[in-house]
Amino acid sequence: MSSPFSREGSPVERAVKAARVYRRAHGASILREFAALLSIPNTSANAEGLSRNAAFLADAFEKRRARMELLKVASAPPVVFGELRTPGATRTLGIYVHYDGQPAIAERWAHPPWEPTLYHRPMEAGGQPRPFPDEGELIDPEWRLYARSASDAKAPFAALLAALDALYAADIAPTANLKFLFEGEEESSSPNLPRYLKHYGESYHDVDAWVMLDGPVHPSRRPQVVFGARGVASLEVTVYGSVRPVHSGHYGNWAPVPGVMLAHLLASMVDEEGHVLIEGFYDGVEPVSTEERAALDAMPDYDDDLRQELGLVRTGLEGLARSESLMLPSLNVRGLESGSVGETVRNVIPAHATASIGMRLARGNDPEAIIERIEEHIRKQGYHIVRVTPNHETRLRYPKLAKVVREKGYPAARAEMDRPLVASISGAVEAAAGEPPILVPTFGASMPLYLFTEVLEKPVVVMPIANHDSNQHAPNENLRLANLWYGVDLYSALLVM
Amino acid sequence: MSSPFSREGSPVERAVKAARVYRRAHGASILREFAALLSIPNTSANAEGLSRNAAFLADAFEKRRARMELLKVASAPPVVFGELRTPGATRTLGIYVHYDGQPAIAERWAHPPWEPTLYHRPMEAGGQPRPFPDEGELIDPEWRLYARSASDAKAPFAALLAALDALYAADIAPTANLKFLFEGEEESSSPNLPRYLKHYGESYHDVDAWVMLDGPVHPSRRPQVVFGARGVASLEVTVYGSVRPVHSGHYGNWAPVPGVMLAHLLASMVDEEGHVLIEGFYDGVEPVSTEERAALDAMPDYDDDLRQELGLVRTGLEGLARSESLMLPSLNVRGLESGSVGETVRNVIPAHATASIGMRLARGNDPEAIIERIEEHIRKQGYHIVRVTPNHETRLRYPKLAKVVREKGYPAARAEMDRPLVASISGAVEAAAGEPPILVPTFGASMPLYLFTEVLEKPVVVMPIANHDSNQHAPNENLRLANLWYGVDLYSALLVM
Repeated sequence: MSSPFSREGSPVERAVKAARVYRRAHGASILREFAALLSIPNTSANAEGLSRNAAFLADAFEKRRARMELLKVASAPPVVFGELRTPGATRTLGIYVHYDGQPAIAERWAHPPWEPTLYHRPMEAGGQPRPFPDEGELIDPEWRLYARSASDAKAPFAALLAALDALYAADIAPTANLKFLFEGEEESSSPNLPRYLKHYGESYHDVDAWVMLDGPVHPSRRPQVVFGARGVASLEVTVYGSVRPVHSGHYGNWAPVPGVMLAHLLASMVDEEGHVLIEGFYDGVEPVSTEERAALDAMPDYDDDLRQELGLVRTGLEGLARSESLMLPSLNVRGLESGSVGETVRNVIPAHATASIGMRLARGNDPEAIIERIEEHIRKQGYHIVRVTPNHETRLRYPKLAKVVREKGYPAARAEMDRPLVASISGAVEAAAGEPPILVPTFGASMPLYLFTEVLEKPVVVMPIANHDSNQHAPNENLRLANLWYGVDLYSALLVM
Repeated sequence: MSSPFSREGSPVERAVKAARVYRRAHGASILREFAALLSIPNTSANAEGLSRNAAFLADAFEKRRARMELLKVASAPPVVFGELRTPGATRTLGIYVHYDGQPAIAERWAHPPWEPTLYHRPMEAGGQPRPFPDEGELIDPEWRLYARSASDAKAPFAALLAALDALYAADIAPTANLKFLFEGEEESSSPNLPRYLKHYGESYHDVDAWVMLDGPVHPSRRPQVVFGARGVASLEVTVYGSVRPVHSGHYGNWAPVPGVMLAHLLASMVDEEGHVLIEGFYDGVEPVSTEERAALDAMPDYDDDLRQELGLVRTGLEGLARSESLMLPSLNVRGLESGSVGETVRNVIPAHATASIGMRLARGNDPEAIIERIEEHIRKQGYHIVRVTPNHETRLRYPKLAKVVREKGYPAARAEMDRPLVASISGAVEAAAGEPPILVPTFGASMPLYLFTEVLEKPVVVMPIANHDSNQHAPNENLRLANLWYGVDLYSALLVM
């Protein structure tokens, strides 16, 4: 291998070389800084924790020569704005990452979610915890770092910080000016991001293209570049029986059973294959374009492997490929709760039953309209809808009551796939990964991508690095170190492409 | 009013008078002893607590001249045996009470479940906590004592102990020898009671009739005597999706949603009216006898008041009266659990969903056979049934997997209503309550009554005292003191009838 400081090869090749040299020498300190960031709680319920995350990031990027600023909109966590100008740069790249994480139910984790713990292999493959390495110690890329947001989405911060260090160490200057937009409400469906952009959008006026750093690579572990994301809409529905739990003997056959009511309501909404039965749910879904069709056809067929991995015989929507099924909206029951099961079960008819419903929207679905359709559907099942827990008078007025709590959502977006940007990015990926990326029309997941395509009207791509088996959103979230290293290499290439 | 020590009136009238004099003078100490019993935890998970309850009861009844003994069957809480012989008694009355209680989820209680707390009115009517009274202080019968088992079923112990004290204080001797059977596993469906009776049944050979002290009075607050109880059978069913929770975006439309699977399974089992759709569920249910029909027709129609109280417009089984609907078996969803709802909801497709199903059986239903029918039904919905959490290999073999955990149950029983015993008991109730009891063919609730009718082959009646709105089995269980006093009066009359 030629010296990393040689001027041979293309700029992206030199950047990737610099990244590799740097991370091999400084892996331990990269992990240490990453762990420090992962130690700061980052759920929406923890405003103070979110502020500390924002401050940590501002400080870390200032140390890398960026000018950082915390943008505030009342009662929302700060957006971290940043600017890194390089003399001679001819264009400006916007970089979006989010620093908040999904809630975590600590009892379901092997370690506390905000106490990063290193394992020598995945837990489910018999991995054992091990100490963080000392500087210079050989780091096995199959190690896993467990913590909330290890993959979603603090990994990109760690990789980006290391990429800047690597370029500086090799005396390579980024070829673009950078503007950062680090958000703290992505996992709550970015309710304030439109307002931020209204207040501060001018700061981003000169951005030529955006990259969103989030999400996993392809389940085959091959690199991917993603051009869209599904939208999101969600709601919680609670149905009511008696005003208090009643004895299941003295009232069984007579008092309504909320668990049964809820079962019928949910079964009326979606069949066992996953077809949503709510009238109009699929209305307006935009067709797959010619380029998207070509991209879908070119994607590797990995579904059998996934079924094997996830222990599934049967997958949804009449055996549609996973990549194909993500082009359509979906409905998930995120949670069910009524009375209790297991050790604390009691012989009562519970007073209520709740389901949390999360939807992923396709391009063409309007989040508000979808929620309206669902409420219409609930009404058609004979329910009167209320917004707060019904009082006694209301209970005595309506035979069937459902409380619906809507959550804010946003629409899907899919960027065009045939822009010149794509070639540069594919080149960066190929330099980092040794193979060209899979081009993916849409992520199944949601990101506020529509703000970039529709509000800021700029090209956007998503450049994910996390392992697909990272337990994103679930207990024992983790990052495979090979994926962190890929991120360092990839983002180094991105900064000079 | 004549002196309580006069020899006027019938024996039951004199006993009731003695009870009233005693409880008015000693109400505070009756409550103190009751609170001491309520302070001892009594769930099936707490073997040590159950033993302490048994020891407390043995001690308390020994102080009332009974000979007490703890009967042991390996690894089960003791049955408290007792005998109280009175010279000149011509018959023997068996008295069954249970000392265990349902589990309690402490967070849902206003006070810790085993810290008895007195209120001046029900909580939901704006009641406020108040200190326990001093001896001689006037006690309002509308006060409520809150604690697990305050009504179900420690109240009968408190009433029975006070009734013995009252009779002794008035120098009135019970007219029957008494045999006690105090059980510690009633809330777990009395799994060991048949074995106890096999080992120790001979101790009860001379019992002429049994009374079970348990359950609430009629919702109208009128006294009732009950001749039967429904049986019980229960199971927990868990359905499986992916081996781990997966991101609802990246897998939504493709990975199965356990909450949807469970909704379809439950909806296939029971309709919204409460009709159970499982084949054969109602097979073998014995018809209502002529006396039972007459008793049902004579029962007060209280359903409208109950609907008003419970905030219900719609009640089950095509508007059948509650008393009527309890003659049939019922199916309840005691609990639902999958992923999470509320603040900890996450955008994942949960890995599994669980329902806890509790049934009440009518005479003629076999608990084992009912569970078999349900499993057959689950299989007909395409599920392969497992007994333990499926391993990966099993998951890859069956498209739909359900884990079914059966719980032990027992059959219903209904005693004949036209025995001579009934007249004596009605007289005792009338003396205590000032009105004759409602004669109820069956409790909706379950009690191991079948052991007395079918195994010991003896007459049995249930003599309940608790208020119907006692939150039995639910958070904030309580006893209305007027109901405790009724119990003291009633059991005093019972002992001399």
